[in-house]
Amino acid sequence: MINANARAVFSPDGPFKLTTIERRDLQPHDVLIEIKYAGICHSDIHTARGEWGPVQYPLVPGHEIAGLVAQVGSDVTKYAVGDRVGVGCMVDSCGECVNCHNGEEQYCLEGNTGTYAATDRYGQYTQGGYSTHIVVTEDFVVRIPDGLPLDAAAPLLCAGITTYSPLRHWEAAPGKKVAVVGLGGLGHMAVKLAHAMGAEVTVLSQSLKKKEDGLKLGADHYYATSDPETFKKLAGSFDLIVNTVSAKVDMNAYLSLLALDGTLVNVGAPAEPLSVNVFSLIGHRRSFAGSMIGGIRETQEMLDFCAEHHIAPEIEVISANQIDEAWERVLASDVRYRFVIDISTMNKE
Amino acid sequence: MINANARAVFSPDGPFKLTTIERRDLQPHDVLIEIKYAGICHSDIHTARGEWGPVQYPLVPGHEIAGLVAQVGSDVTKYAVGDRVGVGCMVDSCGECVNCHNGEEQYCLEGNTGTYAATDRYGQYTQGGYSTHIVVTEDFVVRIPDGLPLDAAAPLLCAGITTYSPLRHWEAAPGKKVAVVGLGGLGHMAVKLAHAMGAEVTVLSQSLKKKEDGLKLGADHYYATSDPETFKKLAGSFDLIVNTVSAKVDMNAYLSLLALDGTLVNVGAPAEPLSVNVFSLIGHRRSFAGSMIGGIRETQEMLDFCAEHHIAPEIEVISANQIDEAWERVLASDVRYRFVIDISTMNKE
Repeated sequence: MINANARAVFSPDGPFKLTTIERRDLQPHDVLIEIKYAGICHSDIHTARGEWGPVQYPLVPGHEIAGLVAQVGSDVTKYAVGDRVGVGCMVDSCGECVNCHNGEEQYCLEGNTGTYAATDRYGQYTQGGYSTHIVVTEDFVVRIPDGLPLDAAAPLLCAGITTYSPLRHWEAAPGKKVAVVGLGGLGHMAVKLAHAMGAEVTVLSQSLKKKEDGLKLGADHYYATSDPETFKKLAGSFDLIVNTVSAKVDMNAYLSLLALDGTLVNVGAPAEPLSVNVFSLIGHRRSFAGSMIGGIRETQEMLDFCAEHHIAPEIEVISANQIDEAWERVLASDVRYRFVIDISTMNKE
Repeated sequence: MINANARAVFSPDGPFKLTTIERRDLQPHDVLIEIKYAGICHSDIHTARGEWGPVQYPLVPGHEIAGLVAQVGSDVTKYAVGDRVGVGCMVDSCGECVNCHNGEEQYCLEGNTGTYAATDRYGQYTQGGYSTHIVVTEDFVVRIPDGLPLDAAAPLLCAGITTYSPLRHWEAAPGKKVAVVGLGGLGHMAVKLAHAMGAEVTVLSQSLKKKEDGLKLGADHYYATSDPETFKKLAGSFDLIVNTVSAKVDMNAYLSLLALDGTLVNVGAPAEPLSVNVFSLIGHRRSFAGSMIGGIRETQEMLDFCAEHHIAPEIEVISANQIDEAWERVLASDVRYRFVIDISTMNKE
């Protein structure tokens, strides 16, 4: 076993404490990564607090991981010691089903293995990236291109791919009108990516508070959804709406903003079901869809795209002893736009 | 003005009475059609009873119209006297918007003009096909191929195109698994069409009562949705589900039957909103969509496809004096699978 230092919660209501966890000994295809940075995702909070189902404690969250390869297993071919690499929301899948074969491991029919709070094929409970080291099979490791700083690259592993994948799947491109609902961690990446793909980008945010930011990030237009005029003015406008808001919203109001054959895709999932008026869909052959992260091949493609287009998330780097505070600020939407833990501060009091 | 005999309701609760209505004098592009057969669609009942909003009385329903051209306007180029023709759910649209230009007149941004219970561009309230004659601009008239009998062709103008269009749009084809929910007027056409397109077809019906019929119509499999085992067994199976049921159903149960990237398309619309669990969509990048009839060009394509594949609805031809009774049977789902009024019996006591 390999020991790693980590920040873990020991109960649903925290707080984080410094602890030591065990990573498995390197299997032939495993890579040991020295983690440099780990992003903080809202899902970390939902999961750790048991809001998405019961979990085991202590729990080390974190699925936006960037670091350096420290050691490789005997049969590893893709990576060498010193390589800049990342790990996202999953660390394994069955590898046998049709979805895995198609590079859509996130939709593995057996269920992919989450980076934390899951039981892996060795029977071990997985622990995430708020940690100094992690061991991952090479097929679930991606390469971080030289053009991307490691700290800003970390959030791409979840916030980046979660928005990149639906933008690609529903073909954001020149001539397409894309709206992004919510300008948080996911939303701000959706704006940057859709803009880089050439689409005309509109932000739909509760208020105009972040309007200046939104336009700087690449949005062409910015509207407040608290203003009913917004829904009148933009009716039937968009080819694609990416909804990054996990709270329950008036789905029919947003569906009414879609043009013929338009799709509204949720990348967040509110716990409660949403109410959909079927007339909203039928009248313009609209679709209401969902999308979950992306496959490993597509995650690599996204990283390469970001490097090529000089895209990176806006981040606030924090020390490991500031995670509790950062979580409170995430819950209060007080972050522009992603917290990233500097793992070199792991042992800081 | 041209006088036509018709069967109309004079109040939301009927009954039908024989009456005389006026059709406009032929404009240069108009076609006068001597109606031979008119199908009975469930929408006729909803509309006439004011369930989809207030309507004017007397009202002549009917938007599944088959007949012969009796006279043409001075500038008509597409049709000649004696041609076998049909008219569906719409008789006009703006002709100017992007959707009209793309041959998707059903999604006209100004709203298409319904075959009955709408106000047309001449300010006249439209009256439908339970009538001896109708005047329609040639662009909203389609040709009924010789291979199709006029009586069986009538229901294709609504039940046919309403199911053909989504099957084409979401690419029912060999190798695709298509489920049809509900085996009524729309459902039985969806089965025939999807089968002819080469898809593997499954009927999902409340009970197994019509199983023998379903298999004869072209279904490969038939399951009862009243049996919870059905949902376990078929989880994640279908590329496309066409939901022809307008009643409120457990949408999440049906969504769970979709494979990765699958679409459930509603062609009927329940009056109440449906409850959708977003996790049902996100987990397999599923879509919940709607579709409404089809454009004129596609309606012609559908008729040609039916003639080529020897497909026609299963019908029960009735006299004009049996409409009230037929409506009651439609409401009781006691029809296999579409009533068609023989318009030659219009004056029958």
